[in-house]
Amino acid sequence: MKKADIGLIGLAVMGENLVMNMESKGFTVAVYNRSTEKVTHFVEGRAKGKNIVGAYSLQDLADALAKPRKVMMMVKAGQPVDDFIEKLLEVLEPGDIIIDGGNSHFPDTERRTKYVESKGLLYIGTGVSGGEEGALNGPSLMPGGSPEAWPAVKPILQAICAKVEDGAPCCDWVGNGGAGHFVKMVHNGIEYGDMELICEAYQIMKDVLGLNAGELHDVFAEWNKGVLDSYLIEITRDILAYKDEDGSPLVEKILDTAGQKGTGKWTAIAALDEGVSLTLIGEAVYARCLSAMKEERVTASKVLSGPAPSFSGDKKAFIEDVKNALYASKIVSYAQGYTLMRTAAKTYGWDLNYGGIALMWRGGCIIRSQFLGEIKKAFDKNPELQNLMLDDYFKNAVMAAQDGWRRVCATALMNGVPAPAMNAALNYFDGYRAERLPANLLQAQRDYFGAHTYERVDQARGQFFHTNWTGKGGDTASTTYVV
Amino acid sequence: MKKADIGLIGLAVMGENLVMNMESKGFTVAVYNRSTEKVTHFVEGRAKGKNIVGAYSLQDLADALAKPRKVMMMVKAGQPVDDFIEKLLEVLEPGDIIIDGGNSHFPDTERRTKYVESKGLLYIGTGVSGGEEGALNGPSLMPGGSPEAWPAVKPILQAICAKVEDGAPCCDWVGNGGAGHFVKMVHNGIEYGDMELICEAYQIMKDVLGLNAGELHDVFAEWNKGVLDSYLIEITRDILAYKDEDGSPLVEKILDTAGQKGTGKWTAIAALDEGVSLTLIGEAVYARCLSAMKEERVTASKVLSGPAPSFSGDKKAFIEDVKNALYASKIVSYAQGYTLMRTAAKTYGWDLNYGGIALMWRGGCIIRSQFLGEIKKAFDKNPELQNLMLDDYFKNAVMAAQDGWRRVCATALMNGVPAPAMNAALNYFDGYRAERLPANLLQAQRDYFGAHTYERVDQARGQFFHTNWTGKGGDTASTTYVV
Repeated sequence: MKKADIGLIGLAVMGENLVMNMESKGFTVAVYNRSTEKVTHFVEGRAKGKNIVGAYSLQDLADALAKPRKVMMMVKAGQPVDDFIEKLLEVLEPGDIIIDGGNSHFPDTERRTKYVESKGLLYIGTGVSGGEEGALNGPSLMPGGSPEAWPAVKPILQAICAKVEDGAPCCDWVGNGGAGHFVKMVHNGIEYGDMELICEAYQIMKDVLGLNAGELHDVFAEWNKGVLDSYLIEITRDILAYKDEDGSPLVEKILDTAGQKGTGKWTAIAALDEGVSLTLIGEAVYARCLSAMKEERVTASKVLSGPAPSFSGDKKAFIEDVKNALYASKIVSYAQGYTLMRTAAKTYGWDLNYGGIALMWRGGCIIRSQFLGEIKKAFDKNPELQNLMLDDYFKNAVMAAQDGWRRVCATALMNGVPAPAMNAALNYFDGYRAERLPANLLQAQRDYFGAHTYERVDQARGQFFHTNWTGKGGDTASTTYVV
Repeated sequence: MKKADIGLIGLAVMGENLVMNMESKGFTVAVYNRSTEKVTHFVEGRAKGKNIVGAYSLQDLADALAKPRKVMMMVKAGQPVDDFIEKLLEVLEPGDIIIDGGNSHFPDTERRTKYVESKGLLYIGTGVSGGEEGALNGPSLMPGGSPEAWPAVKPILQAICAKVEDGAPCCDWVGNGGAGHFVKMVHNGIEYGDMELICEAYQIMKDVLGLNAGELHDVFAEWNKGVLDSYLIEITRDILAYKDEDGSPLVEKILDTAGQKGTGKWTAIAALDEGVSLTLIGEAVYARCLSAMKEERVTASKVLSGPAPSFSGDKKAFIEDVKNALYASKIVSYAQGYTLMRTAAKTYGWDLNYGGIALMWRGGCIIRSQFLGEIKKAFDKNPELQNLMLDDYFKNAVMAAQDGWRRVCATALMNGVPAPAMNAALNYFDGYRAERLPANLLQAQRDYFGAHTYERVDQARGQFFHTNWTGKGGDTASTTYVV
């Protein structure tokens, strides 16, 4: 019997759909699940008559695979992945490849790559985005790990992944160790940010302009035809048109509490660890935290009052301003995300292909958009681009959008409507383009109370001075050069 | 010979000053340092003729101490603390007390408390704030760890700590395990926030109103007489008056790059881990990250332009608005910090005394202020206060300040002057008091692309619904109740 091209462990929906996808591209797939009745159920059901082989033990699975064996795990992130690695090491051989397609935290993937390599096998941790439908029809894939494994898995992963208009695959090698899962994590953080920005635009137009769901549907439909063209704008358009059984907009019946625990939080923590100002995603995560405090907010809304929203200007012009605010904020968010990737790449020694990452996100995943095509072009022009906003296309875009962006943020503030992510983005823009920030005063404070020393604008960097600000402490010079 | 009341390891400035402080309060102190020449240098120098005993080995130190022995470590956070604990366990006995007065991360203190207790000894991790001068004349102390140790060390710690006007000590038992170091960490995060707010007020008045250092000195001198009366406002006043050798304000000669790595970052990460919206401290940490990118900012300032700041209103009234913006933002920052402590207390099982914490911060430390006296009163009135802004005093304060606060944030935005912390605070205020946030749309999006389900406003909590938004997928009902 012909050996299978790849094995897959974990027959939940994502796993099943990936198997169906692989099989549809001409690969023979062996499947295993810890509860083996799922194997039977799958091979006698959806997989019936297809080149899909059921395995009822990991030894079975190993025996069914062509060498070098490729085994992809689609299991819950955390301990289950480590457990399966241990068990797989017992039945696999040097040169075989273990692939983790779950939502693993990148430091785990760093660790596991080294561990599996120390046993003579190869390891891949790959981000998989696009949900159930993506898994079936073409996900965005972000593989990293042992570079020697890439040539062996590339034909399979690039066959099953999403493709952009010109046929380019939304899957390429990201980098060593945990690079793939790191990039997937940043993708998810950016997804948090994109969603929060859409929510803020929705709330501003609803609360300040008084637009109803139907009018908002029209706005998002229009926006989806221009620079904001993207999956998330598209589904927002559709959501706003969806009617509940009583004919009213379903979205307004949904409770305004969102959960967070996962990759958005990890992204914000990674930014803090790397010392990168990732304010927009940070605010998006914090906004979910605040949304979850529903009961406390209801209490607070009765105690703390603010201005009653009112608007007397040109609604149509203001809607254009909101679009500009969303667009410019989105540019900042991606600029921050890319800065995080650049910084982490230095820390971890990854050689990341930034244009390639934009292409991987260009199709298949939740943040897919035209916008990412422009990011790809920016990095094609300059692979060492320091900041997205320094690229001509995005510089011109943000410059053209900034007046409207400022008006929207100021209007929201004056009307008491929260827009934390748009505001954070504008403040980052103004801070990033500030030759002079007030950290001079901060350094003076630190030197005053803790003798932390400071550098001077009129001296070369790397020289540290201390001032005896109070004048107390004897006859030493008040300002001292500290070696 | 009389045994010493307490031993101290680590004769850097902080350690020496604490020893001098203890001795001045009538305690006999035995001292040890890894480089023992520092012991000689200290006992034959500053400590000469005082009740301070040099020890040249840890065994010496143990022999010099009355039982139960109390040994305080003032050594570098991290591995050195673990190393000294191991060595101390060799020379101490059950019932003895090891105290860590360094800047340890609270999870380490959690772990060490359990470990030392497992050996039959007791452990205290205490925050020490106030810098070198505080250590000598009265620091703010935040001890936590083994509660059985508190009665034995209380007389010493409450003797050496700072006192407020009525003589109350700025030191009390915080809670079990890592509670003391957690509260110290939040203190430092709040310190980051307070400093950032002052910097933003300074920059707005400098760049929008065009005030010079002398005029800014007058403003801060005035502010220090009212509700903002605090150590950080006081030193800002003095810094702004300080002239360089050429007679110009020294603060303007200082390079605008600030470092961050430590406790501010830890606080922001702890908030993310606890799911608490700690936006102001987060922005303060991120602002330091941005300040550190000096060269990139200089480049960006030549590429990305913004509005030229201009102001045509009543300057005096606007300065009052800036004061209100600073004050209201500060209230939000402390409200967020207290929410973090309340949430962490649940997670770690700490029984925190929130009024007591305000009192500990009221004197001796960098954030000491009149303001903390009002926080103490708020928690004395209601120890279970859910949010500082729900207390009448702070509610009235923030309501009175909010119009000016909004004008300052909007003016800064329209003038291209960054004020990320003030903006984040105002957005938090508006989000916190919002009965309805746009997370309903976010939940719809998540249900659309990932079948994450949602709750409804017209159904009891805990019921989860899924909608087949696209209408595809067969004849199942479009909205389904999911168990």
